[in-house]
Amino acid sequence: MADSQPMTLAALQSLIATMYSRKDEVRGIDGTFMWFMEEIGELASALRDSDRAAQAAEFADVLAWLATLANVAGVDLDQAVREKYGTGCPGCGQMICRCDESTKP
Amino acid sequence: MADSQPMTLAALQSLIATMYSRKDEVRGIDGTFMWFMEEIGELASALRDSDRAAQAAEFADVLAWLATLANVAGVDLDQAVREKYGTGCPGCGQMICRCDESTKP
Repeated sequence: MADSQPMTLAALQSLIATMYSRKDEVRGIDGTFMWFMEEIGELASALRDSDRAAQAAEFADVLAWLATLANVAGVDLDQAVREKYGTGCPGCGQMICRCDESTKP
Repeated sequence: MADSQPMTLAALQSLIATMYSRKDEVRGIDGTFMWFMEEIGELASALRDSDRAAQAAEFADVLAWLATLANVAGVDLDQAVREKYGTGCPGCGQMICRCDESTKP
């Protein structure tokens, strides 16, 4: 990870698996989700502040815990994103979303 | 996105920015966070079920909304993850986490 290659979603999942898989297996989905939610809360808190470095660190934590959760669930994030968003907005099918303003997203 | 190149975090943020930045700017951080949380809830629900394809789709949504939130906050996810996890676990500094079992992570 010391290199400057752009990080892929697969590399992220692999890095997090190497770092935490031993603990992930013990925690399981429920326990991992609880930690994930704690990080979501910390992100919310950081977004209320103006410290950009702190915000970035919290985004990293949420992303790492999402990768952990995907590892425990056996989901490939690259494939999942590609399938849902790779050919356009899931709502309208366009690369630049044209869904009605009142609807998500 | 029709190619089979591994998706980078930068490409994910760029894809989501292209697709949704017009709406993101209107929603701002608070409004975006609300939608993000809705997706977190849907992921929790999917994880209770055994439908792997539905789980993958919800992971994709959470990741997409996290990318949107990072776009609105002006945070580079690649850089953020690299800085926090690129040289080891933030807790113990090891590539294979050796933090005490009772602590996160």
